[in-house]
Amino acid sequence: MSSPADTETFPAATPAAAHLFTTVLSHGPLTRLEMARRAGLSPAAVTKAVRPLIASGYLAEDADAGAEAEVRPALGRPATLVRVDGGRALFIGVKLTGDEIIGVLTDLCCRILLARRVPLADREPDAVLDATTDLVRELLTEADGYGVRVAGLGIAVSGDVDRAEGVVRYSPFLDWHDVPLAALVAAGTGLPVTVDNDVRALTVAEQWFGAGVGLSDFAVVTVGAGIGCGLVVHGRVVAGAHGVAGEIGHVTVEADGPPCHCGNRGCLEAVASDGAILARIRETGGTEVTGTAEAVERARQGDTGAREAYARAGNAIGRGIATVVNLFGPARVIISGEGLAAYDLFAEQIREAFQAAAFGSAAQCDVRTRPLPFEEWARGAAATAIQSFITAPN
Amino acid sequence: MSSPADTETFPAATPAAAHLFTTVLSHGPLTRLEMARRAGLSPAAVTKAVRPLIASGYLAEDADAGAEAEVRPALGRPATLVRVDGGRALFIGVKLTGDEIIGVLTDLCCRILLARRVPLADREPDAVLDATTDLVRELLTEADGYGVRVAGLGIAVSGDVDRAEGVVRYSPFLDWHDVPLAALVAAGTGLPVTVDNDVRALTVAEQWFGAGVGLSDFAVVTVGAGIGCGLVVHGRVVAGAHGVAGEIGHVTVEADGPPCHCGNRGCLEAVASDGAILARIRETGGTEVTGTAEAVERARQGDTGAREAYARAGNAIGRGIATVVNLFGPARVIISGEGLAAYDLFAEQIREAFQAAAFGSAAQCDVRTRPLPFEEWARGAAATAIQSFITAPN
Ligand SMILES: [Zn+2]
Ligand SMILES: [Zn+2]
Repeated sequence: MSSPADTETFPAATPAAAHLFTTVLSHGPLTRLEMARRAGLSPAAVTKAVRPLIASGYLAEDADAGAEAEVRPALGRPATLVRVDGGRALFIGVKLTGDEIIGVLTDLCCRILLARRVPLADREPDAVLDATTDLVRELLTEADGYGVRVAGLGIAVSGDVDRAEGVVRYSPFLDWHDVPLAALVAAGTGLPVTVDNDVRALTVAEQWFGAGVGLSDFAVVTVGAGIGCGLVVHGRVVAGAHGVAGEIGHVTVEADGPPCHCGNRGCLEAVASDGAILARIRETGGTEVTGTAEAVERARQGDTGAREAYARAGNAIGRGIATVVNLFGPARVIISGEGLAAYDLFAEQIREAFQAAAFGSAAQCDVRTRPLPFEEWARGAAATAIQSFITAPN
Repeated sequence: MSSPADTETFPAATPAAAHLFTTVLSHGPLTRLEMARRAGLSPAAVTKAVRPLIASGYLAEDADAGAEAEVRPALGRPATLVRVDGGRALFIGVKLTGDEIIGVLTDLCCRILLARRVPLADREPDAVLDATTDLVRELLTEADGYGVRVAGLGIAVSGDVDRAEGVVRYSPFLDWHDVPLAALVAAGTGLPVTVDNDVRALTVAEQWFGAGVGLSDFAVVTVGAGIGCGLVVHGRVVAGAHGVAGEIGHVTVEADGPPCHCGNRGCLEAVASDGAILARIRETGGTEVTGTAEAVERARQGDTGAREAYARAGNAIGRGIATVVNLFGPARVIISGEGLAAYDLFAEQIREAFQAAAFGSAAQCDVRTRPLPFEEWARGAAATAIQSFITAPN
């Protein structure tokens, strides 16, 4: 097991150096000239910033770039490419859901080396803490086989999470209030721990390694048990001055709609979450439905009540996305979440409602779906740990 | 009159230099050490960046800072303060409305030196162009008295404005489509011209000189003939990947509400704009109302229909603001616009609806009103001209 004594800080002396590292991390191998251009720095400043990163093995230079013909000038010697050495450090990412813990071990490039799932029988903080610590220890044992230290742990939880303090302020799915999760897990594992909202963590992973690479403004909208949204504006994830941001689930879509757990009526989450769709089917059909799988099955077989509930949810999601797009004008919206399993039942309604409610040229926004299993959410948690590692003050 | 031959570029060689200048412009006199701290630069980098700005007179140093006792260390010599020399250049800002043109002459610190209003009888582009050019020439003549050149002109227009191209894509109030306003006015006045959406221009002025100074995340919501919103996220005004952003006026607040000019129903603007309030009073009272002044008067005298129309508008505005706050979590929302003249009629409803719809700690957002006459909007246009001047590539 890793202990605080192992702690080695990342040798990026300035925010500019951390930014350069992140650029190479998300864009892949780059020449120094290209790094300078993207960061708006002089080549001399790039050389100075990368020197300690190369010396300590976090960045590597491929002196022989023969395989990269496209960067070889017509005349003169080939340009050298700078890349991240993914094997230089390992990270663990954990996603907590109401009934499962998903953990992944990744390298520094956030590539998943192995993944584990354990069921969660009890949602009390103590029980979740024990189960999480056990899973992390198991992953640390596996990590020993790689001969590289684990440099950080990220944990993603739905709800109101204060990343700076490492505290879960409120998680409706776990029914937690003010749990200092980072400190508790750090004590039990010896790792530096980053705790963040799960949708924000997924958004970091999309920004660095997914469908958001190269975009300064995009949104991730997740559908399923809850409806969430991560926003990247001017190249950075929006966190909110008071810790609240991306609450698309509580945008009003039906003024007199069903009551929502937040105290209002007609919120997007009260119309389009898995639970809201089930409630609607029960209400209109007057029959019991065991769960989402059965609801999807019934709708696919043509059950009118089930089809109508999904259509209504799709319409609401499309209008919620239009609200985000009309306000921020992102270049792309990535729809994900476990609710995508039913996408065939509401894709058309999402598209039509979005197009109808998008204002003017905002309708040009690229709205796309991207199914991401919970392992990808755990990877998002690992991405936040990598982020903390490379931006930690020395 | 200024002509292109006068054109002198601003001596900020790098984005960092322009940023340092903006910091001193909005925060007031600062020591070099404080400038370095705020910009995250070394003192040596600050000294290098400010040298040409001091040499050319845009920045001044007060060698004798005797009056500034608070920056005088207990021991040692007093710290020198760097400040912007407001008299070094003049700017003109123009706000176009549907029936008036408002122009101001400002100094480099965006202080209004004088203001003029002219009525607009005809909204055709040619007529507006002539009236604007005449007003600008009049202000240029006045500027001659200051013995300092006018370095730029900003024009603020409501609607979809492409600042980079200088084109008004669509303005509902003027009924314009694709008018290349910047090029036309530049040809008629000899000035470099910046054209921007009026709410975004006002937001720039609030960010640099108003209630947004020092905040990295805030929103300006304007009520009146239209309902607009300017957003500052991570320290920069949001422009939208496709030119659309801040369209709070087209957030749905009543699913089956009145039709909106955008083609949807129940948009905030279709419920809470001056015109929507008048339409509602006519509809419920079955009587004619000549205009907003009469509607306000009637409501203040206790007319039930008028009071109800304002209450409904206030409720809708409060929910629209909550949507903005739930999505990006600004530290402050500044409500302004000519509609504030009726603020006593809906302030309570705005506050209550905002509090009810704000999610969790987002309700802590500082929502305040700030009455700003059209001269302040014209000042916003001047601020965009100053922005263009100090960030123009050399
Ligand atoms: Zn809600
Ligand atoms: Zn509308």
